[in-house]
Amino acid sequence: MVNAAAMSGSGNLMDFLDGPFPGVGTYEDFHTIDWLREKSRDTDRHRKITSKSKESIWEFIKSLLDAWSGWAVMLLIGLLAGTLAGVVDLAVGWMTELKEGICLSASWYSHEQCCWTSNETTFEDRDKCPLWQKWSELLVKQSEISLFWTFHVTGIIQSVDFCVWLHSLSVKTILSGFIIRGYLGKWTLLIKTVTLVLGVSSGLSLGKEGPLVHVACCCGNFLSSLFSKYSKNEGKRREVLSAAAAAGVSVAFGAPIGGVLFSLEEVSYYFPLKTLWRSFFAALVAAFTLRPINPFGNSRLVLFYVEYHTPWYMAELFPFILLGVFGGLWGTLFIRCNIAWCRRRKTTKLGRYPVLEVIAVTAITAIVAYPNPYTRRSTSELISELFNDCGALESSQLCDYINDPNMTRPVDDIPHRPAGVGVCTAMWQLALALIFKIIITIFTFGMKIPSGLFIPSMAVGAMAGRMVGIGVEQLAYHHHDWIIFRNWCRPGADCVTPGLYAMVGAAACLGGVTRMTVSLVVIMFELTGGLEYIVPLMAAAVTSKWVADAFGKEGIYEAHIHLNGYPFLDVKDEFTHRTLATHVMRPRRGEPPLSVLTQDSMTVEDVETLIKETDYNGFPVVVPSDSERLIGFAQRRELIPAIKNARQRQEGIVSDSVMYFTEEPPELPANSPQPLKLRRVLNLSPFTVTDHTLMETVVDIFRKLGLRQCLVTRSGNMTGCSGCCK
Amino acid sequence: MVNAAAMSGSGNLMDFLDGPFPGVGTYEDFHTIDWLREKSRDTDRHRKITSKSKESIWEFIKSLLDAWSGWAVMLLIGLLAGTLAGVVDLAVGWMTELKEGICLSASWYSHEQCCWTSNETTFEDRDKCPLWQKWSELLVKQSEISLFWTFHVTGIIQSVDFCVWLHSLSVKTILSGFIIRGYLGKWTLLIKTVTLVLGVSSGLSLGKEGPLVHVACCCGNFLSSLFSKYSKNEGKRREVLSAAAAAGVSVAFGAPIGGVLFSLEEVSYYFPLKTLWRSFFAALVAAFTLRPINPFGNSRLVLFYVEYHTPWYMAELFPFILLGVFGGLWGTLFIRCNIAWCRRRKTTKLGRYPVLEVIAVTAITAIVAYPNPYTRRSTSELISELFNDCGALESSQLCDYINDPNMTRPVDDIPHRPAGVGVCTAMWQLALALIFKIIITIFTFGMKIPSGLFIPSMAVGAMAGRMVGIGVEQLAYHHHDWIIFRNWCRPGADCVTPGLYAMVGAAACLGGVTRMTVSLVVIMFELTGGLEYIVPLMAAAVTSKWVADAFGKEGIYEAHIHLNGYPFLDVKDEFTHRTLATHVMRPRRGEPPLSVLTQDSMTVEDVETLIKETDYNGFPVVVPSDSERLIGFAQRRELIPAIKNARQRQEGIVSDSVMYFTEEPPELPANSPQPLKLRRVLNLSPFTVTDHTLMETVVDIFRKLGLRQCLVTRSGNMTGCSGCCK
Repeated sequence: MVNAAAMSGSGNLMDFLDGPFPGVGTYEDFHTIDWLREKSRDTDRHRKITSKSKESIWEFIKSLLDAWSGWAVMLLIGLLAGTLAGVVDLAVGWMTELKEGICLSASWYSHEQCCWTSNETTFEDRDKCPLWQKWSELLVKQSEISLFWTFHVTGIIQSVDFCVWLHSLSVKTILSGFIIRGYLGKWTLLIKTVTLVLGVSSGLSLGKEGPLVHVACCCGNFLSSLFSKYSKNEGKRREVLSAAAAAGVSVAFGAPIGGVLFSLEEVSYYFPLKTLWRSFFAALVAAFTLRPINPFGNSRLVLFYVEYHTPWYMAELFPFILLGVFGGLWGTLFIRCNIAWCRRRKTTKLGRYPVLEVIAVTAITAIVAYPNPYTRRSTSELISELFNDCGALESSQLCDYINDPNMTRPVDDIPHRPAGVGVCTAMWQLALALIFKIIITIFTFGMKIPSGLFIPSMAVGAMAGRMVGIGVEQLAYHHHDWIIFRNWCRPGADCVTPGLYAMVGAAACLGGVTRMTVSLVVIMFELTGGLEYIVPLMAAAVTSKWVADAFGKEGIYEAHIHLNGYPFLDVKDEFTHRTLATHVMRPRRGEPPLSVLTQDSMTVEDVETLIKETDYNGFPVVVPSDSERLIGFAQRRELIPAIKNARQRQEGIVSDSVMYFTEEPPELPANSPQPLKLRRVLNLSPFTVTDHTLMETVVDIFRKLGLRQCLVTRSGNMTGCSGCCK
Repeated sequence: MVNAAAMSGSGNLMDFLDGPFPGVGTYEDFHTIDWLREKSRDTDRHRKITSKSKESIWEFIKSLLDAWSGWAVMLLIGLLAGTLAGVVDLAVGWMTELKEGICLSASWYSHEQCCWTSNETTFEDRDKCPLWQKWSELLVKQSEISLFWTFHVTGIIQSVDFCVWLHSLSVKTILSGFIIRGYLGKWTLLIKTVTLVLGVSSGLSLGKEGPLVHVACCCGNFLSSLFSKYSKNEGKRREVLSAAAAAGVSVAFGAPIGGVLFSLEEVSYYFPLKTLWRSFFAALVAAFTLRPINPFGNSRLVLFYVEYHTPWYMAELFPFILLGVFGGLWGTLFIRCNIAWCRRRKTTKLGRYPVLEVIAVTAITAIVAYPNPYTRRSTSELISELFNDCGALESSQLCDYINDPNMTRPVDDIPHRPAGVGVCTAMWQLALALIFKIIITIFTFGMKIPSGLFIPSMAVGAMAGRMVGIGVEQLAYHHHDWIIFRNWCRPGADCVTPGLYAMVGAAACLGGVTRMTVSLVVIMFELTGGLEYIVPLMAAAVTSKWVADAFGKEGIYEAHIHLNGYPFLDVKDEFTHRTLATHVMRPRRGEPPLSVLTQDSMTVEDVETLIKETDYNGFPVVVPSDSERLIGFAQRRELIPAIKNARQRQEGIVSDSVMYFTEEPPELPANSPQPLKLRRVLNLSPFTVTDHTLMETVVDIFRKLGLRQCLVTRSGNMTGCSGCCK
């Protein structure tokens, strides 16, 4: 009965008397779904439930359950995604520290937990306690580096073995309606979660955001299979996946609103308002599930919580915009180099040795990264340090200012901000780290391991930003009598906030690579928790997008989808020439005419031959005459099982039987075999445009209505089809 | 030349050789625009500029200017909307206080400014200073009430005289593509701003949010007329208006992100992603322009800045959900009663005396509101007080707890939270104020004055919420040994935060009336500035929406649009029956067949008669035979000027001239008059669906593509039209 309802919804009126065929209405792998059909199937289902609910109390309760199942799925997604993100964060933290040492009292404790439970620790010595032993103290001193390195490699080999083909990028393609089976399965969920931990803790230049979105989508896919409303409708399922993507970003950054906007702006293809609200719900639940686990250790929801105490000045917009330009250039450079490298991997022998590639990159990362303190630590910690203000308690090298009372000029009454030795050392170390990060990220992203791009991009921007920030600060300090720097250095406060520059740089670089706009600023707004600094962030984000767009419109996600040849109709594409539907439809000029079915004159054998010899998704059904008037469209995937079924079960159907799509059978000669009625597989409302329709309009229709194919007519006669080819 | 480019874009290929007619391509008043046509006109314009820009440096600069004009418009909208909002806020503050007294040193000073400039004031006595004189002190004591009252009435009379027909609601209709001339003009802007100040400061139960959105849209309309890119394209203009609406909400509440989401969720019909980003820009600029003006006096961006110090407990969700139910019921009651009253106003004699009505309502408001301290003050102040926590400095009656050390039970060590006399008085005064607000708001909203609904709705919810909050607090205090209240009352903190209940109640009531969801929660999130309290807010908002939706799907805006009979295709409409295009198209069964034009056989006179006798928007052009094959569509508004023009300027065109839409003139008898070629007004790509298309699909197409009309075919032959009637 469900199947009949499902069939009847494909945009036309079918004969309910004929029973359903098995196999009708499902999609094949690597095919695109028909959004319009899925939508009207759901409308039918809903209408049925509503009308039934008036019959009895039980049916009414069932209809209520159905209406609430959407919220239930969202709740479960939020809970599961939040929990998984917490587990991943804890595991990453533990494994990252395991590279350095171990807690003797309990090996599963992190460094901090280990020392907090020890009573002998004072606040100053909180990093040193007898229970926490570095490997170098436990074993021979020299083995430290080799162990660090070994750990890298073993972790990564495990990753690679498990997930040779799990790429996060494709979530976008799936949401646009493409079917890739097994890509969001339970095994993927499990493997991706484990390998994500290994990958991130290995110290490679990658982040957890992209893979977390994938993990959340796997959760969404798994949970939606528990509810028939979602499991039986590919369109509805994609609504759940959009919400799950929002929950994924929400837990990755602790930014629920940013997550929803990210899903809206970047990931989703079809985003009805109902989904917006539900996505928000899922994102919030996920964020609040993550909080008690407290992975970021600051009882805040966000990954990098910062609080600045100095206002910013209008003149600072100039360095902020410079950072925006840097972000745009970095985005362009990264996308071009990364895509070139990935293409080389796809086309040359290199692609055959994914494990070897990962080991090589890991080895280089480990060897080059170890000596420099800014590349040795985890990227999240690095970003966190770069974002932070130099407070009184800050012991970072970056905050090593010369604080000698004898050196101050008491007349000026300005703060002590000359750079100390530590700051100078930090500057060149940061510069080296920046160059290294830029190069290694290009080679890391796209390897066969779960790799996110947000954190490395932000790290690049934060390093550049911090360096610019320190530069501006020193300039302002040493030339505080210049007009533009007047009043910048006031007693009791810093001259400028270098941490803000780091944050602006991070936003610029992230914007340059992903081309996000609103969601980027909102995520950054949620990270800082104040509107104060939104103008610098916006200035940098806008500049970065403009600069990057000047060199090429594609963001990294679109570029990879393009590279992998997935079908994706980009919303942002523009046509530079005036193109009409007639120029892009099949058959092209000079090709044989379109294969069509006639409404009542072809035999079963004719149709079977046609199906065998062509690979079109479907065939227009026409009134046979010299002007072929269109009466409907028959899908290949519905025709094949219908004929097969009839041949097996219906008596008198042979190869010579005439097939008819009309209501009444055609008048046939007396001795002809039993004709086959196929009206139920005929879509009576195929989408048509005239051959003079502008290509922009056709694309608009495809995109907004989620069409699978569109027929092209001239004065009511079939002339071609767009999207009928496989 | 511009006009030719504009014409050529209407979705078809026209003959460029024939010059343009004057008057072609503009819309009449109270007509709906054709989004698809506007869009393709803009694409053409853009393509032209791009191809020209390669010709010379000057053209390249012009193309850059064109590309940047969108951002320039947004910047200007933000600046103007922010400034106007600041001016309105300051003027309202001053006029509200002018009802009570005047500053003797400078009459344009507000009470606070007046006393701050006076040196004799201490912090405790900051409300009392010799320079500020109440009217009652200046004049006879008894005249206070009468003066207060007079001020009300004079203020309102001025409002009414100026803006008899300026209703904010219609912004939504305009954004959906309806043309109402003069509605967003410069005069409207000026009058609306002035009367908004008078209306809000009069003390009537209305808010400034709706009118501020209208004012911002007027700014947007005015500014877009400065740029030819926007002034000549009704579709592009609506993108600017969407952004302006976001800026309006942004300055009304100080919530830029909430404003953008409000515009997306509630106001806008067609919202491309580019608009999202630009709206965000406009909203931010507006918010930052408003800040230096500092109308809310707390150097924050937001209207009601609150900071709570006590966490909330899971068990509190129960009263929060109760508040949600209250909000939903209030929303339903308000919408039903208000619509019934507005319908009565429309249909009976009452509507003829708008000024009298306003005076009557003002008189009643003044008389009834004056005795109660909670209705006497401005609604914004009331909400602000209700939202606030009882801190140490709080002198409000609501915070009058008995704080007697002798009364405490030192063993329990709980805070002193028994309600004092002030709280008890406040409770019944609040109850009376609540009843009064509920009743008066129903009669106030919809009068011929600029009236916003947000603030009164929030006030109703805040009053109910605060009362529930105080109730829960007293319950928790007096029964702190019950299991559910255990640990609620801890030393050094309050038991619960009644202010949070007020905020939750406000969100619930606002949600019940407007049916906003995401934008409501985001606005509230921006008001409080913390994610902490988003779960209570969401719980209440969701409950309120569910309860209100159970009684009727229409929010107040949709209900008023419906009442006024504006055309608006609601996105949220659902069809309960399976309807096909054939059931809703014209001609209906039994009606005469559709009026069509033939491609090459009708004379000018025939067509003129057809145009005169029917009022269709346009006519399908067919190949004349028994099966009428469709070749295109001719718009009425393009046909009329084309024929008029030809008759005046083209030689040999008489009533008997044959009109043809084909490329080549038809073969005519030797002595027939000069034929008239009208191919250029023929749209060769009209939108068609088959008669078996589901109504949901047709509505989807209309909505998503912004169509004006859609032709219905059966087997390639014209059978009807949907949307062709006026």
